[in-house]
Formats: sequence, C-alpha cells, structure tokens
Amino acid sequence: MSAKEGRSQTFNRIVEASLNLFNQQGERVITTNHIARYMNISTGNLYYHFRSKEEIINELHRRYAKGMAECLNAAGELSASIDGMVAVMEKTLRHLWQFRFLQQGIPSMFPVNKALEENHRDFTHFQVANGVQKLFMRLREQEMLEGDDEQINFLAKHFLLIQWGWIVRPDITDCPQEDRSIVREGCRSLLHFLSPYVSPRFRAPFQRTLASLELQPA
Amino acid sequence: MSAKEGRSQTFNRIVEASLNLFNQQGERVITTNHIARYMNISTGNLYYHFRSKEEIINELHRRYAKGMAECLNAAGELSASIDGMVAVMEKTLRHLWQFRFLQQGIPSMFPVNKALEENHRDFTHFQVANGVQKLFMRLREQEMLEGDDEQINFLAKHFLLIQWGWIVRPDITDCPQEDRSIVREGCRSLLHFLSPYVSPRFRAPFQRTLASLELQPA
Repeated sequence: MSAKEGRSQTFNRIVEASLNLFNQQGERVITTNHIARYMNISTGNLYYHFRSKEEIINELHRRYAKGMAECLNAAGELSASIDGMVAVMEKTLRHLWQFRFLQQGIPSMFPVNKALEENHRDFTHFQVANGVQKLFMRLREQEMLEGDDEQINFLAKHFLLIQWGWIVRPDITDCPQEDRSIVREGCRSLLHFLSPYVSPRFRAPFQRTLASLELQPA
Repeated sequence: MSAKEGRSQTFNRIVEASLNLFNQQGERVITTNHIARYMNISTGNLYYHFRSKEEIINELHRRYAKGMAECLNAAGELSASIDGMVAVMEKTLRHLWQFRFLQQGIPSMFPVNKALEENHRDFTHFQVANGVQKLFMRLREQEMLEGDDEQINFLAKHFLLIQWGWIVRPDITDCPQEDRSIVREGCRSLLHFLSPYVSPRFRAPFQRTLASLELQPA
C-alpha cells in the first residue's frame, strides 16, 4: 500500500467512526480524543488528517450533500411512476437517517462553525429547496400531481419539512428508532401527505403502493 | 422590597437575559459567565439562583411548556371559527419563535441534560402530540375538517412538523427572520396545508381569512 492510500484509508476510517459516534452519542459530547480512542489510534495521527472536529464535520456534511444531490438526480430522472417515486423517497429517508446527527442539531453547530453554516444554507436553499420545487412542478407536468403554482410551491416546502421532521422528531412522529421502520413509516407519512394532490389517473397505483407499505411486516 | 421579592426579581432577570442570549447567539456558545457579564451581576449572584446553565435551560423549558399548554387550552375552548383558529395559530407561532433556541437545538442538549430530555419527550408526546390530535378530531366533529381517522391522525402529526419546521428551517421556508413576518407567513403556510381537508361549509370563511393574510403588509 502506498503512503497516499494509507492516508486516505485512515482519513475515511476517521470520518466513518465520527459519524457513528455523533449519531449514537451526540456530536456535542464527542471530542477528537473520543474519536481517536474509539479507533485505537493516537490523537497525533488523527490531527495529521484533520486539524479539528469541525473539519471532520465539514467532510461529513460534504458527503451528506453529495448523497442528497444523488437522490435529487435520481428523482429528476424518473418517468412518471408511483413505485419509482417511493423508491427515491426510501433512498432519501435512508440517507437522512444515516446522517441524522446533522439533521438533529445542525443550527446548534453554526455559532462554532461558520463554514458549515454557509455551506449548509446555500446547499439547502439553492439545491434542495429549489430542486424539490422543480421536481414537483415536473410531477404536475407528468399529470401525477394537481394544483396551482402556489399549491405546488407550498407542497414542496411542506414535503421537505415533513421528510426532515420525520427523522428528527420521533417525539412527534412516534416511530421506532430503527432504520427500516423509519424509512417505511416515513414513506407512508409522505404518501398520506401528498394524497389530496394525486391526480385521478394515478389514484389506483397510488392506493396500491400505499396499501403494500401498510402490509409490510414491522 | 422583601428579600424574597428581590431574589425572585433577579431570578426572572437571569431567565430573561439567558433567553435573549441563547436566541441571539446560540445556547451552545453562551456560558453562565457571559450571562452574568451581560446582566452586570457577579457570577456568585447568578450561582445563588441557578447552580448551572442547565438549570436555567430547564426553567426556560418549564415556561415554554406552560405557554404551549395555554395555547392548546385556548384552542380547545374555541367554537368552530376559522378566525378563532388563526388567532390561536398566531399565538402558538409567536410562542415557538420566542423560545426558538429550544426548537433549533433541543436534541443536541439531551446528552448534557437528561432532565431536559425526559421533560421534553413526555411533554411533546403526551401533551402536544395527543392534544393536537384530539383538537383535530374535535374540528372534525364540528364539521370544519373532513377525513377518516387515519387522515386526521396524519394531519395532526404533519401540522406539528410544519409548525415547528417553519420556526427552525428558514433555509427551507425562506421567510424573513422577523417575528411578525414569521407569524403571518407561518399561518398562511399552515392554512394552505389544511386546505384540502376544510369542509365545504367552512370553505368561504376559510378563503376569506387566507386572502386577508395575503393582503396584510409585510
């Protein structure tokens, strides 16, 4: 193994170990010392790759944003199909859940990490919010959804809030804290939310997909 | 002024100063030293009233929960009226915005404040989520809303997620960070969300109220 490969392997291990610790114990209480101890490496080795915890978080945010962009691209390439839409919803919910420490506390990190604040606001506003709005306009063109422009705009905003709240507010959604259930229940929740806007043409496949999600074992 | 009154006045001033600082600069970066300096009192005086920052936060959470319970009671006492419903929505959004540091970062505080985690989960689950669900069932009995039990249950959950997301995710909702606009735009957003479930009987006053919110100056 070359020095470069060795470096990149440890770099990736640090990022993955940090993601696990942040998700499980809360980013706020985890220090670079915890991460190094958990990985059984020296803090010197960790600092060779990352100068601070904030740099690790920024790398995790970069991966989170990359994954979200992939979900949006996958959604943009769909032909009009309810099952296709649900497959992308599942992919997106799984991705949000994988990076849940970001969803759960990101505004609390901004005062100590201005780079994160800027990256996150730009990404969420320009890519995610605009991307989902365009996507919903396209679903209307494909005659899957119905509504005037204002309704479609609100639908896109509310969809994002519910998708995101589903991951971070189990106290409201009362869903089990487990990957598979989160994803399935989250999809059911999003489909119920979209239901009044589904066009008559897509009503039958929509109801079939919803019923199949409700029949799956917990 | 008696010693007791003096104590309670400083106690309240600490709580209010902390709320301002937490909302403006982020709870995470504010210490008891910052609070004492901001108030021009000694840290000894502050520690006479609160042994830690967590105790101040728990007192703020108690006030937040009391205000939310008042909003729920006000909603429960309404006769079926769209304007009455909007008045309670405005009151609730104003209250959530006043305690926005809690909305924005509460899960990130749980690992350092177990009492907060228990109080918050119990309160949100048993009082808020159940309270809003009962409220929506009552609005159906009053023939303001329409839907089967499952639809009304999802409506209540999604309503809470949107109401809450509106305060914490300006990056999605793209609304100005100012009390009055937040409240008015948040109400418009919630009314658009409820719109497909409003019964024909209440459609005319509903549209009138929505139009009046859109006409108000920014």
